[in-house]
Amino acid sequence: MHASIRRELIDIVGTDGATDRIEDLVAYSYDASPQEHLADIILFPASTKQVSAIMKVADREVIPVTARGSGTNLAGETVPLRGGIVMVLTRMDRILSIDPENLTATVEPGVINYDLQLAAAQVGLMYPPDPASWMVATMGGTVGTNAGGPRTVKYGVTRDYLLGLTVVLADGRVLKIGRGPLRHVAGYDLVHLICGSEGTLGIVTEITVRLIPRPAATRTLRADFDDLEDCGRAVAAIIREGIIPSALELMDQSIIGAVERANRLGLPLDVEGILLMEVDGDPESLDPITERISTVLSANRATKVIVARDAAEAEHIWKARRGAFSAMACLRPNAITEDATVPVTQLATMIRKVNEIAERHNVQIGVLAHAGDGNLHPLILFDQRDRDEVRRVEAASAEIFREALTLGGTLSGEHGIGIEKAQYLSLEFDEVAMGVTRAIKQALDPKGILNPGKFV
Amino acid sequence: MHASIRRELIDIVGTDGATDRIEDLVAYSYDASPQEHLADIILFPASTKQVSAIMKVADREVIPVTARGSGTNLAGETVPLRGGIVMVLTRMDRILSIDPENLTATVEPGVINYDLQLAAAQVGLMYPPDPASWMVATMGGTVGTNAGGPRTVKYGVTRDYLLGLTVVLADGRVLKIGRGPLRHVAGYDLVHLICGSEGTLGIVTEITVRLIPRPAATRTLRADFDDLEDCGRAVAAIIREGIIPSALELMDQSIIGAVERANRLGLPLDVEGILLMEVDGDPESLDPITERISTVLSANRATKVIVARDAAEAEHIWKARRGAFSAMACLRPNAITEDATVPVTQLATMIRKVNEIAERHNVQIGVLAHAGDGNLHPLILFDQRDRDEVRRVEAASAEIFREALTLGGTLSGEHGIGIEKAQYLSLEFDEVAMGVTRAIKQALDPKGILNPGKFV
Repeated sequence: MHASIRRELIDIVGTDGATDRIEDLVAYSYDASPQEHLADIILFPASTKQVSAIMKVADREVIPVTARGSGTNLAGETVPLRGGIVMVLTRMDRILSIDPENLTATVEPGVINYDLQLAAAQVGLMYPPDPASWMVATMGGTVGTNAGGPRTVKYGVTRDYLLGLTVVLADGRVLKIGRGPLRHVAGYDLVHLICGSEGTLGIVTEITVRLIPRPAATRTLRADFDDLEDCGRAVAAIIREGIIPSALELMDQSIIGAVERANRLGLPLDVEGILLMEVDGDPESLDPITERISTVLSANRATKVIVARDAAEAEHIWKARRGAFSAMACLRPNAITEDATVPVTQLATMIRKVNEIAERHNVQIGVLAHAGDGNLHPLILFDQRDRDEVRRVEAASAEIFREALTLGGTLSGEHGIGIEKAQYLSLEFDEVAMGVTRAIKQALDPKGILNPGKFV
Repeated sequence: MHASIRRELIDIVGTDGATDRIEDLVAYSYDASPQEHLADIILFPASTKQVSAIMKVADREVIPVTARGSGTNLAGETVPLRGGIVMVLTRMDRILSIDPENLTATVEPGVINYDLQLAAAQVGLMYPPDPASWMVATMGGTVGTNAGGPRTVKYGVTRDYLLGLTVVLADGRVLKIGRGPLRHVAGYDLVHLICGSEGTLGIVTEITVRLIPRPAATRTLRADFDDLEDCGRAVAAIIREGIIPSALELMDQSIIGAVERANRLGLPLDVEGILLMEVDGDPESLDPITERISTVLSANRATKVIVARDAAEAEHIWKARRGAFSAMACLRPNAITEDATVPVTQLATMIRKVNEIAERHNVQIGVLAHAGDGNLHPLILFDQRDRDEVRRVEAASAEIFREALTLGGTLSGEHGIGIEKAQYLSLEFDEVAMGVTRAIKQALDPKGILNPGKFV
């Protein structure tokens, strides 16, 4: 990067808002995927105006810009593949308003998901999307990836709560879309076009979301299964019964074992799978729903059903799920989480296929799932230094994606495409869909400076 | 239209699938708005393949194409302003599948909303978007306009249930987006870009929607208010209490009077407004919720609260709302329904403003509202032959839109932009937003043949 441009960029954000020291370039060269690439400079803008000024320079000089928050994304979306500028939005971390009467919140992109949850809870409201990384993930990142979480099965993904956005376009123009507290229906739905576009169409600098009343009560259940496929069938049966739990999670034996060894929660080591469930609603409705779920679980050969009697017991049950990723990740040097999703009726089949694939390629895979959504997170453990193992992992991943698509599924239930899945997108998007995708990218970012080298 | 092109188009759809008799051209020259314009030919394709073949001819010859279903849309979206082809999709009226295990339905665009509701109900499921015109409105039309309905306050609009679409593009290419029963998060969200685009980006020929379990029970309430603004305040107070009814409708005195004169339902003629409400959920939860709502209503000076004791009483209460439009429409030669929407906390203010505007311009306006959404439907009555009155109606409409935007609202809560509101779109969309809108239109329909002359 030419010194005069570097100077111009630093002038926009101030000297404390920019760095190109090698240790910082390395720190912002990666996300929660195994990918990495060095940028030329890291900028920390503090306002929409600064973001706009940076984009005007980037547009003029045709410099790649990759926006990011905490970098908890799992598919390489925020790795600056073509160098240039990494724009870190964590300084823009104000909750601008919480409106309990119109049920909305407006935040800057650097606000942590969990902090919004807390602020909403203080006025009796809830912001449903809660990715596993919610303690650190930024709201901007959840918009960029259209993040979900355990509550998706009942409450939907980020997209379902977005009311308005401020977006800085590739050429620095500021686009404001969506009107205050209202569902947006006038004109093209630009809000939802930006959501999930992984920083390739614009940079989000303000976000208005819909909040909902907190459910008055919740109840947590756990069910154990000797047969993992029974576990999958039980999930489909619960949905078929007309019950949509607020969370419906599955863990297989290898995950259970890893969590138990790490956290000593008293999980059963001899079962093939467990389901963790939460139902919510009015207090009066929870006993009958719990009863109905228990009946379905037993009919699908659950060997044990535990219903939490209080908040402490519920918390104990959920600890197993929350500790799953870290318990697995510390078993081997590297771990990746896939995100293939299938119709819920295919859940049992898909789980069996993943196990077959793991065996055939001699790869260590544990299966976690937002089961109610059919959203599998096969967790693959390996050692990146072992080239042969890496090749086997890649072959297994590719087979998992193909299998999901064959079963009527999709590449990504919530993690996005990024780099990791870019090579598979053509399996899901045909030439026409890719053509439209490229036409839209071309319309909004003709010079291709926004997060280049990714799926478009 | 040149005879050879006419012949080519008729060959695609068959002689029983095309007409250019003047009585048919007139029949398809208008929708539920006061606008009208003659097309050159009306085509009734029976398949995606035929739609694609028609678009290839239209693209080659640069012929305008306006797609439509039953034409119940209220803002002129389906009026063929530039002539050319009107493509009527009512022949494509098959429900292709209802999948009670994966909670989805796939339909052709000509399926009537109500027929899908019935089919879903037969397997214990529900398709929430239910515009007032649901007995005749097509699913394709509800996608094109992103239609809502009384249940929007709790369940959202069409967009919130769309999983996948087949779309024929301007040049005849067939775009398939969204994967089976799954929430779509991979790649750009083309499904939601098409939804609400009013036939300006492509022609929808297949629709996959998410269904939800039918609530086990519902309860209907009516509340009377001596003061219309109290009525508005009560709505905000219910939401603030953390209760989201499945319907929350408001009718003002002039509407009540018209309905009562037409239908003799025993409505009170001396009150300024009534609220009609439905709550749904588990049977055990309805008594306590009804209690809480009644308390809020009384605290906001409701003079009477009626709770339906059975389905017949509930039906009787809802009859008032369903008959409202027709009861009003038969009072004067012409009626238009506006669709301005404000934050729910501004509802009372907006109602007062509408009344002031009506008085100032000496125009007859009744106020209906999906009140829980802040979505007002000021129903304006007039005689189109009276030029002075038409001028006054236009002035009043413009003021209503401006007022809604001033109060942080939007031009359209659910009816779309069409012709009626195209002139006001720039009040809501600034130059940047209009620029992005035009860039996307240009990318997908470079020759501008899809529904030309509308908001883009």
